[in-house]
Amino acid sequence: MSNDQFYMELALQNAKAMKGQTDPNPLVGAVIVNNQRIVGIGAHMKAGEPHAEIHALNMAGDQAKGATIYVTLEPCSHHGRTGPCAEALVQAGIKKCVIASLDPNPIVSGNGVRILEKAGIEVIIGICEQEAIEMNEVFNHYITADRPFITLKSGISLDGKIATHTASSKWITSEEARLDVHQLRSNHQAILVGIGTVLHDDPALTSRIQNGRNPIRLVLDSTLRIPMESQLVNDGLAPTWVFTGSYYDQEKKAQLEEKGIRLFHTATEKVTIAEVMTMLKEEQISSVLIEGGGNVSASFLEDGYIDKVVIYLAPKLVGGKEAPTFLEGTGVALMSEAVELEHVTVTPIGKDFKFVGYPTNK
Amino acid sequence: MSNDQFYMELALQNAKAMKGQTDPNPLVGAVIVNNQRIVGIGAHMKAGEPHAEIHALNMAGDQAKGATIYVTLEPCSHHGRTGPCAEALVQAGIKKCVIASLDPNPIVSGNGVRILEKAGIEVIIGICEQEAIEMNEVFNHYITADRPFITLKSGISLDGKIATHTASSKWITSEEARLDVHQLRSNHQAILVGIGTVLHDDPALTSRIQNGRNPIRLVLDSTLRIPMESQLVNDGLAPTWVFTGSYYDQEKKAQLEEKGIRLFHTATEKVTIAEVMTMLKEEQISSVLIEGGGNVSASFLEDGYIDKVVIYLAPKLVGGKEAPTFLEGTGVALMSEAVELEHVTVTPIGKDFKFVGYPTNK
Repeated sequence: MSNDQFYMELALQNAKAMKGQTDPNPLVGAVIVNNQRIVGIGAHMKAGEPHAEIHALNMAGDQAKGATIYVTLEPCSHHGRTGPCAEALVQAGIKKCVIASLDPNPIVSGNGVRILEKAGIEVIIGICEQEAIEMNEVFNHYITADRPFITLKSGISLDGKIATHTASSKWITSEEARLDVHQLRSNHQAILVGIGTVLHDDPALTSRIQNGRNPIRLVLDSTLRIPMESQLVNDGLAPTWVFTGSYYDQEKKAQLEEKGIRLFHTATEKVTIAEVMTMLKEEQISSVLIEGGGNVSASFLEDGYIDKVVIYLAPKLVGGKEAPTFLEGTGVALMSEAVELEHVTVTPIGKDFKFVGYPTNK
Repeated sequence: MSNDQFYMELALQNAKAMKGQTDPNPLVGAVIVNNQRIVGIGAHMKAGEPHAEIHALNMAGDQAKGATIYVTLEPCSHHGRTGPCAEALVQAGIKKCVIASLDPNPIVSGNGVRILEKAGIEVIIGICEQEAIEMNEVFNHYITADRPFITLKSGISLDGKIATHTASSKWITSEEARLDVHQLRSNHQAILVGIGTVLHDDPALTSRIQNGRNPIRLVLDSTLRIPMESQLVNDGLAPTWVFTGSYYDQEKKAQLEEKGIRLFHTATEKVTIAEVMTMLKEEQISSVLIEGGGNVSASFLEDGYIDKVVIYLAPKLVGGKEAPTFLEGTGVALMSEAVELEHVTVTPIGKDFKFVGYPTNK
């Protein structure tokens, strides 16, 4: 590991420690190094509070003069509550600025770098870039796209099954993997399932970890079949939003609304993903976790809506031609049309393995 | 890594380098250390030639006196062509013997250790034991079991598919993974498929690597449907053995035998795995690689005949309720009955990941 990587990793670690507390702002970390000694560290901690660079500059004081700053995101060029960070770096006498990733907003991207370079500061871009981009993948997506960042999650056996031929599914994965799923839920603003999953499993879809945040529960339910006695309707543990088509039972709608359930109606008889995406963007939902079933997941994938895939793979064999897999629907016709994943990582978790990757068909 | 592990790893490396050239003998390596210097290394290289310990003793000469020997398998106690290795160690004045794994043959296991201990040699057992056992897993199985060692192999997508709903399957995995499959074939004495695979794919089932050894090709074909024009019947690249039931077409049998194909008839109308196993043991087949299809693989698993599983997992998504997986049949009814794998390893290979594990239902 080079020195540049070492300092940038420290900045990334501090940035990531603030996960969940900076919304709607991105995670950012900074480290200032003078004469091979760290003289300041900082991270953005809360919207409205100072940016990472300002915290680090304050800590460094006079030692910022002639120093190098490592920052995980391009310093801003706009006048917010704290003034443009790029100008603050110039005023503090920073000599060199190492940046992991540029601002993802095309309107301002590169402006910070131009301010720094105009002032004679040496700028290096791209150290630990992929890690910095992935750390803010939801934010980066949200400010540029017209829909939320969509993550598809599943727990499967080594032969690809999510249940047996009798629909028995408890439990495929180990306790450690299931705990990680609850962390994943907590990191998402909303969680989405098809009505089939509600009818079959009656899930709560909550985050059962300490200090876990329950995501908003979204149900695709074209003909408003959601049972009045289901957990999602009754438990009150998190908001439940139901997306239904243009024809629906007015009386049931009233009953659901009385229970505090929000109903969204699409213009078409059958709910389309495109319409749901537009509605979620209007509601400022930035991230959605899809937890099945197999047809809903396949529809999202086929239409190019999956940004990230998280699979917990259990080293066990289920068998069965009729046992379901996590991607049903029709699927691709030719193997050459299969959706490849990129930036794939595999991590052991309990007895299982966590696969993370990014579909290339977006 | 301790010193013991360091020396044993060297012995294991030398043993593994002889893979494929010691049959029917196991792989064995040895290292002799005197006063913290390696004074001898050895490996068993060919049946009928000296055992690993003898090579290492010859290299060490007088320096074997008072030395420690690291050997991957318990020194033998029987009088073969080279005399019992345990006695040779005693005569050479070895002071300490570190053993990775005991002799797997229950009739002689522990006899070598007893000779050593009786002579006052300190014996340590179990350093790198799992690695030593896996290195000789086929040999260990063969000398104690009444059937060959069976490995199930498949190449699958992350959603568990082996082909699309239109049966398109070229290619799921990367070139690197496919090359590894050919190495795997070369390491097996025989390769087995169901007649469905022959009818659908007309495979050659040969090992297309340099110096690759083609395994004997086994086909389960209860009603003798194998096409006379298939590669397995015509290419002459390796022996083809067909297992058929008690009723079959005498004329086709004669035609196949004229082509050099061997036919095996089971006592039952439908070929049973148990009968095939008995026949293969009689033919001294020690290892069989199963390459599908999904029903054949499921039958072997359900009956507890799979000793090892090797899965090449491609990070891509195929989708499709009708797209096949590598384990079909009925499968288990309850998730708690799924067959767990143990000693699981995951290794990146090209763009893909190689999973190796050992079913616990044998």
